[in-house]
Amino acid sequence: MYVIMVYDVGEERVAKVLKTGRKYLTWIQNSVFEGQITESKLEKLKTELKKIIEPEKDSIIFFKLREAYLTKKEIIGREKHDTSNII
Amino acid sequence: MYVIMVYDVGEERVAKVLKTGRKYLTWIQNSVFEGQITESKLEKLKTELKKIIEPEKDSIIFFKLREAYLTKKEIIGREKHDTSNII
Repeated sequence: MYVIMVYDVGEERVAKVLKTGRKYLTWIQNSVFEGQITESKLEKLKTELKKIIEPEKDSIIFFKLREAYLTKKEIIGREKHDTSNII
Repeated sequence: MYVIMVYDVGEERVAKVLKTGRKYLTWIQNSVFEGQITESKLEKLKTELKKIIEPEKDSIIFFKLREAYLTKKEIIGREKHDTSNII
């Protein structure tokens, strides 16, 4: 399945959410990840995120699609890339 | 069509992007809008946004789907609402 994950969490938890998200998905913009993921890996990601966030303050939304082709992506302005894997 | 709009713009332009986005879509979380929109209205929204942002610094991504049912939404933590229309 293809997933878009958006997160709105307290400043002190952003780094941990970012680090966790990067293990499963691709960071594409501030507060936004996307990527192909299996059901079981998505469950693992959600379990890890639930240990990090404060549910009464933080919000993470997953938009789940059967396939990536079901959405057309259009960018205005800069395309921000995840430069974390550049050594 | 159904659209998810995510924006990553300079602090000084956030308010204008927010105000413009709210004319066409529903704010659901920090930096995220969603909603049904026609092709012509999406074009108008993009034109207005292009006048606001600085393309070398800012990034706005539209995920366009033919229909809302093509995506399943799942929320972890709080569901943040757009309280701007509450008087």
